[in-house]
Amino acid sequence: MTAREKLLKKFNDGLHICVGLDTDINKIPEFLREKPNALLEFNKAIIEATKSETAAYKINLAFYESLGQEGLLQMEETIKLIPDDIAVIGDAKRGDIGNTSKMYAKSLFDHFKFDCSTLHGYMGIDSLSPFFEYKDKLHFVLCLTSNPGAQDFEKLKLESGKFLYQEVLDRVKEWNTENNLGIVFGATNDEELKANVGNFGDLIVLLPGIGAQKGNLEEVIKAFRNVDSNNYLINISRGIIYAGNDENFAEIAREALISYNYKIKDLTIT
Amino acid sequence: MTAREKLLKKFNDGLHICVGLDTDINKIPEFLREKPNALLEFNKAIIEATKSETAAYKINLAFYESLGQEGLLQMEETIKLIPDDIAVIGDAKRGDIGNTSKMYAKSLFDHFKFDCSTLHGYMGIDSLSPFFEYKDKLHFVLCLTSNPGAQDFEKLKLESGKFLYQEVLDRVKEWNTENNLGIVFGATNDEELKANVGNFGDLIVLLPGIGAQKGNLEEVIKAFRNVDSNNYLINISRGIIYAGNDENFAEIAREALISYNYKIKDLTIT
Repeated sequence: MTAREKLLKKFNDGLHICVGLDTDINKIPEFLREKPNALLEFNKAIIEATKSETAAYKINLAFYESLGQEGLLQMEETIKLIPDDIAVIGDAKRGDIGNTSKMYAKSLFDHFKFDCSTLHGYMGIDSLSPFFEYKDKLHFVLCLTSNPGAQDFEKLKLESGKFLYQEVLDRVKEWNTENNLGIVFGATNDEELKANVGNFGDLIVLLPGIGAQKGNLEEVIKAFRNVDSNNYLINISRGIIYAGNDENFAEIAREALISYNYKIKDLTIT
Repeated sequence: MTAREKLLKKFNDGLHICVGLDTDINKIPEFLREKPNALLEFNKAIIEATKSETAAYKINLAFYESLGQEGLLQMEETIKLIPDDIAVIGDAKRGDIGNTSKMYAKSLFDHFKFDCSTLHGYMGIDSLSPFFEYKDKLHFVLCLTSNPGAQDFEKLKLESGKFLYQEVLDRVKEWNTENNLGIVFGATNDEELKANVGNFGDLIVLLPGIGAQKGNLEEVIKAFRNVDSNNYLINISRGIIYAGNDENFAEIAREALISYNYKIKDLTIT
């Protein structure tokens, strides 16, 4: 199954939440911190508890890299624990000149076996195409992000009348000849989402910003429902994995996820 | 010494070339490839041969990450071999939401002990400030890159009349309150360099694109000389480290570097 097929199958089953494994040694339950491979133990419990209810997992490489080899080894083991029919996003936001991007792509897909990447498009098509060449994978290019700094450059108006993020959107659609691309569009941008959702075409949209970043779930669902699109993947990291912080943290994470799934179900049928 | 001080000291000594350690197992001399820690062995010889003549080293993380833990261990050991008065750039082009950038910064500076970072600014100030907070380090934000894809977004004209890369330049200068920032400006962009060099202010400018990417060294030196600036660091990777490919590769790399240094000396005094 391609990454796109894995995602579409989950969307079809009504699952749209991606569980973000931003696993931070300082935020996991205290009783786990002293254990060897604490991140892996934490992730293992979370995956076991959430795998039947999640649309995908997103692994934020920074949280593992910051621990050095030890962290990356635990990331590698985490990826192996995820069932094959669930897409795993390697959230590393890479993007460099061609021969370097080729190396990053090799690392993400050949070495770590991720299904999807997240990419910085600033440097243009030749910085992205080494990723796009992995046709069975899915590549989310940063379009409009969920953080306040999206104002600085992403929302600048171009001479053409478009905003920069809209130009990025248009180019990504143009580059999507293999139907293996997507965009990152922050869920904190209600107005921009409403204004642009009709222009997303076949792209799969990864929406961070719900939960700790206070994006509005209802507005997101409504926006996609209004254009009859099912191609959205809402990432929630801290709001799920740190919902609980004692022995039953995994069960509480599962409940948090299920509660989001119910909310989405309610919002899509009413 | 801060990273900026290390660099300025070298510029003052007439050294402006940064040796890029884009060490690729498929490009190093054949007799080395079979050895354990081949990348480290290669780097060790290159560093030994070039350290008295280089202004800095740039380590491209992609080339090490793509080999997994094994590669990263060799990168870590490489960094330890570089004398303390020479700045080491961790070329990883990171940039993410605040709590994630914090982790990447921790990884680059606390774990790997790099002196400098390269950063994607697309997501704006809150994606960059966790790096900038490392005040003794130096942070190069991507402004105008050396690759053909710079056309796609970086050179778009804004409603304000500026090009996007010029807006990035202006914002980076505005953010440079601790005098620990720089920009990446591709040496393949002669015209843009000439037009903007007078506006770089105190920023240190990292220029990739000479060598394999065919930027024009003479035009770069002239541009900086015209505005009496000495704040430029020209990166050359493949053009130096792969100049030779047999037993005496390190000596040939040293000669290539010295020959660049002579060219720069000639161009700065005439």
